[in-house]
Amino acid sequence: MAGSSFGTIFRITTWGESHGPAIGAVVDGCPAGLPLSEDDFTPFMERRRPNAGPMSTARREGDRVQILSGVFEGMTTGTPISLLIQNADQHSADYSAIASVFRPGHADFGFRTKYGVRDYRGGGRSSGRETAARVAGGAIASKILREAGITIRSEVVSVGGEPFAEALPLLKKARAEGDSLGSEVLCTVHGMPAGIGDPVFGKLDAYLAEAIFSIGAVKSLDIGDGRLTASMKGSENNDPFRSENGRIITETNHCGGILGGISTGGDVILRVCFKPTPSISRPQKTVDTDGNETDIEIHGRHDPVIGPRAAVVVEAMAAITILDAMMLNMTAKLSSFRAFYGPQEH
Amino acid sequence: MAGSSFGTIFRITTWGESHGPAIGAVVDGCPAGLPLSEDDFTPFMERRRPNAGPMSTARREGDRVQILSGVFEGMTTGTPISLLIQNADQHSADYSAIASVFRPGHADFGFRTKYGVRDYRGGGRSSGRETAARVAGGAIASKILREAGITIRSEVVSVGGEPFAEALPLLKKARAEGDSLGSEVLCTVHGMPAGIGDPVFGKLDAYLAEAIFSIGAVKSLDIGDGRLTASMKGSENNDPFRSENGRIITETNHCGGILGGISTGGDVILRVCFKPTPSISRPQKTVDTDGNETDIEIHGRHDPVIGPRAAVVVEAMAAITILDAMMLNMTAKLSSFRAFYGPQEH
Amino acid sequence: MAGSSFGTIFRITTWGESHGPAIGAVVDGCPAGLPLSEDDFTPFMERRRPNAGPMSTARREGDRVQILSGVFEGMTTGTPISLLIQNADQHSADYSAIASVFRPGHADFGFRTKYGVRDYRGGGRSSGRETAARVAGGAIASKILREAGITIRSEVVSVGGEPFAEALPLLKKARAEGDSLGSEVLCTVHGMPAGIGDPVFGKLDAYLAEAIFSIGAVKSLDIGDGRLTASMKGSENNDPFRSENGRIITETNHCGGILGGISTGGDVILRVCFKPTPSISRPQKTVDTDGNETDIEIHGRHDPVIGPRAAVVVEAMAAITILDAMMLNMTAKLSSFRAFYGPQEH
Amino acid sequence: MAGSSFGTIFRITTWGESHGPAIGAVVDGCPAGLPLSEDDFTPFMERRRPNAGPMSTARREGDRVQILSGVFEGMTTGTPISLLIQNADQHSADYSAIASVFRPGHADFGFRTKYGVRDYRGGGRSSGRETAARVAGGAIASKILREAGITIRSEVVSVGGEPFAEALPLLKKARAEGDSLGSEVLCTVHGMPAGIGDPVFGKLDAYLAEAIFSIGAVKSLDIGDGRLTASMKGSENNDPFRSENGRIITETNHCGGILGGISTGGDVILRVCFKPTPSISRPQKTVDTDGNETDIEIHGRHDPVIGPRAAVVVEAMAAITILDAMMLNMTAKLSSFRAFYGPQEH
Repeated sequence: MAGSSFGTIFRITTWGESHGPAIGAVVDGCPAGLPLSEDDFTPFMERRRPNAGPMSTARREGDRVQILSGVFEGMTTGTPISLLIQNADQHSADYSAIASVFRPGHADFGFRTKYGVRDYRGGGRSSGRETAARVAGGAIASKILREAGITIRSEVVSVGGEPFAEALPLLKKARAEGDSLGSEVLCTVHGMPAGIGDPVFGKLDAYLAEAIFSIGAVKSLDIGDGRLTASMKGSENNDPFRSENGRIITETNHCGGILGGISTGGDVILRVCFKPTPSISRPQKTVDTDGNETDIEIHGRHDPVIGPRAAVVVEAMAAITILDAMMLNMTAKLSSFRAFYGPQEH
Repeated sequence: MAGSSFGTIFRITTWGESHGPAIGAVVDGCPAGLPLSEDDFTPFMERRRPNAGPMSTARREGDRVQILSGVFEGMTTGTPISLLIQNADQHSADYSAIASVFRPGHADFGFRTKYGVRDYRGGGRSSGRETAARVAGGAIASKILREAGITIRSEVVSVGGEPFAEALPLLKKARAEGDSLGSEVLCTVHGMPAGIGDPVFGKLDAYLAEAIFSIGAVKSLDIGDGRLTASMKGSENNDPFRSENGRIITETNHCGGILGGISTGGDVILRVCFKPTPSISRPQKTVDTDGNETDIEIHGRHDPVIGPRAAVVVEAMAAITILDAMMLNMTAKLSSFRAFYGPQEH
Repeated sequence: MAGSSFGTIFRITTWGESHGPAIGAVVDGCPAGLPLSEDDFTPFMERRRPNAGPMSTARREGDRVQILSGVFEGMTTGTPISLLIQNADQHSADYSAIASVFRPGHADFGFRTKYGVRDYRGGGRSSGRETAARVAGGAIASKILREAGITIRSEVVSVGGEPFAEALPLLKKARAEGDSLGSEVLCTVHGMPAGIGDPVFGKLDAYLAEAIFSIGAVKSLDIGDGRLTASMKGSENNDPFRSENGRIITETNHCGGILGGISTGGDVILRVCFKPTPSISRPQKTVDTDGNETDIEIHGRHDPVIGPRAAVVVEAMAAITILDAMMLNMTAKLSSFRAFYGPQEH
Repeated sequence: MAGSSFGTIFRITTWGESHGPAIGAVVDGCPAGLPLSEDDFTPFMERRRPNAGPMSTARREGDRVQILSGVFEGMTTGTPISLLIQNADQHSADYSAIASVFRPGHADFGFRTKYGVRDYRGGGRSSGRETAARVAGGAIASKILREAGITIRSEVVSVGGEPFAEALPLLKKARAEGDSLGSEVLCTVHGMPAGIGDPVFGKLDAYLAEAIFSIGAVKSLDIGDGRLTASMKGSENNDPFRSENGRIITETNHCGGILGGISTGGDVILRVCFKPTPSISRPQKTVDTDGNETDIEIHGRHDPVIGPRAAVVVEAMAAITILDAMMLNMTAKLSSFRAFYGPQEH
């Protein structure tokens, strides 16, 4: 599915460039009756916020989410929820030097080829700034999932190839050298019901993969044992089923909670690799929009590693995807339709 | 996008179970004017066909594709192309033993939880058999892509952790032990135009990821340097741009042909890991549909490794995805709309 | 939504030309657990069948519907249901004369302009024959709706401006003159639950209008009092609410069961006008594909009036639309989501 | 298509209630390179604005459209265009009396049944106010259509059954009696290219019908001769083709510019009937949310007739629909794909 919308029943549409007046999201298909206030977004937005530590940019992004519609007397009404986040701190001047040069590792050249024009201020639509709108949408999805006992946790597990806890020296060095580092995020969905996802194109893993790769800088995704399964035997990789307190579960979880596109009820495990931040201050070879070779040094405030702030984006996209898949699943059995509508008296 | 359809403009809908009378695909949105005959499918179907070698099942699947609509006088008409493949060799009897048992590594349990009922004959809709319909659709997409100079190549690069060329002894051993092996497929799209894909949810890599993970048994996807980028520095991972014969290209291709969701014009590189075939004849622990613990041995004809026959499925899904993304891209610039429609005289 | 598919959750995709080997439909999103056999289609297909009376063509269309997938042991499985109807009686020879001429009142010219090529045999994809596939899909939707106590009735109310019961002489005269007549169909949905439909673009009437106008030859649709409301006062047109046995209903039903896009629980009333059959044997002025002026007389077997056989098509499209809207509605309230998923124990 | 979005390639998503802080639209899929400023919206918004004449409400709606994204240096960039319109003049107090009563002719009861909760302030999401966002989107679509020489004109032709020019006395009387009147709008699309629309579910008329019936208070739609064709003969209704200056056209236009779902190149003619404004100050019988019978008198500022302000909404929806259909049409022929992409040199 192309464009700026994601989801079938629970659907988010984001808009906005990093250097326009604001960015935002329209969340359509949110069920009526959910208590929702602007405070619900705060913990999520905080996790995406730069914390001025060595892993983050020096910018401060006062990302307060305003609710413009869809909530009445503190409760969602079932109509689209329009969320707006001001771009308080734009500093357009920082970016003027790159207007006519294609930054390596960025979408600049593809963007220009596709559209003929390009909003060169800080990456425009391709900026990581866009993900703030997703995180706001994910906060709503997460709140609904908690009603079904589902929780999602997302964390950086490695930076530059080192375990996250040990990576600080590496990062300081990279920053000192005007360089950046790759990273890896692990996301776990706990409390999943079994039976979510469709057997063919609508596989839960297909849908999650679309969601995760729609986040900028993602270069790989593993589900469960992922890449390791290519070197495994069936007898090692298959998860035996067993009964526990009347519930059927898998004894191990090599599959990462999904078999044949449908959830098993085990934890869904996603492992996501992010490439190093492409904006680096070391000189790089590139060309300008006329094709002339030139050098570029990208200054300004850029995170030297993407994972720490992107972990919550992974979580948000997982939440939106799983909620939508669960909603789509409510019509899988005729008995559910019958229970919902029964025969009417007329 | 849920269900049994994939694609926005060029859209494939597949149907059929492994043990019904037939399977098939409806290909909608195929442009008019493409020469198409049943022979066009043969080379693709042959690559998916079991070759009775040590890497394949003993079944023979005479997968002749019948065209039921959408082609007139040897040419596509722009209307939906209905493709039908008979299930000649069904052997339902082989599968009766598994009717009330959940096979480890299969969708059986999720399927049963989701739908309440399950066509237990050979996996039903979740069978790899379904992918024959995708390969037929991919044959059409590939033929159109060749009009734009785009070729896709897909090959198994490793089996059970060994390079493909060296894996035969491993495979023989696994088969002798009633076991199976994982594998890895590399898919390369050559001749891509730059500028394909959308910057946000419609990223070309997001769309490809959805396509690839919709293939059964896929557990990981890497684009370009993929997982390796998590351990790289920005200065190592960024691909410098340069001019060559008036065309802007990247000097290296760590990014795998996609930056910020949009194609660079370099080769698109996909690396796909398949788990080992879950159907193995070694005894496995599991439960029956009432939750009672039991053992299962799965006999019958199953490929001991998935990659060799699935490589062409990866290629088919890549072709469908890229063609659809290219079609969606034709309206990105106002100048294209203007050139197509110009002002009419009335 | 463009193309050959209709519906979001319960989705039908049709394929096939009038003169190919077969036509068919793929019905995706049908809930699992519905008893379904080929006999379920018979009464619907019979109503679409030409009865050789004065209102119909002399062709006989043995429209037996074959189920190729999605049903196991007499029950739907939740996977796509592929339906196939053979084209037994094709008589291609009858149509050869019109290959290079644009028939007035037909899509020939638009089709040729759009696609560059055209399957000229009997209208190809634009033939009324395509609607047989919709009727088959509608039979499934109707069977599900009956589970909720919903019944749909569709009947011709006028032909050539006369009440249907009095129109026979008019029709005989038209047929004798090589001419055809328009008609009007009334469709009533009884037993509707209140609350179906969305307030903005997903209005139930918008969705029904799309469905009805997707039937060939439809030129107008009225909902409830329809066109008459343009001449009414608010005090005449508004339907007062009242309570009856604890249920809130409207005292009158000027609105035709839909207010603000959402069902009231009253009968949904659709009035559909069909233009006269465009294929007439009287000579008509037209041009050939090179633009040269010419005369055309269309012989062959054509219904002299469309409504009698199209009534069941209206009913089928109404059934598909209402079922899909009801399915989409199941996630409108958070309390429904909560009741379905509750919190899981893990 | 459900929900708050409309369109496949050129897609509008609206949000907002009449009494929230603002309403808005996100226009996705707008081609890059269109000059666009806030002034482009003014003439469209002015036509929707109440003019304080006898046909309109006394409210003043300073509907200035703010562009929040998607435009850079005066030009669209291909990214989503977020449009915001403040709700300056909300007067919530006027509506408090209706909070617990279902207004006849309104969506209140259906809304409450569907969602369980309801924003009762002035109709909330079901308010005509929502259409301001559509008109803003339609202004963009219209500007693009003019690039192809297409113009759309929409006008009220009758009010209360009288020709518009003669209806003023009728209206004054209705208003004096606390009543309202129905109306009829005629919309003409001039300069259409032939070949737009799909032959089956994606018929241009089906798509237009969905668009038009998604406007509140619409109760009927006629295309071309519409309802009249039910009383016509084929020989009267068929439009002969002829050549004129090398272009094939229809001599008459009974069909309203569409045959078999595909445009003929003639003017597209839509005739739309609006019911009388349901908000009237005369006492009406109804029930409250507990089902108790009660009387209601609706005071406040309501247009006594809908057509005059809704004509531009019809025009906007027609523009969005036709533009999207034209974009979808650009891939109908393989030759167009080939011309766009040609073979690449690599």
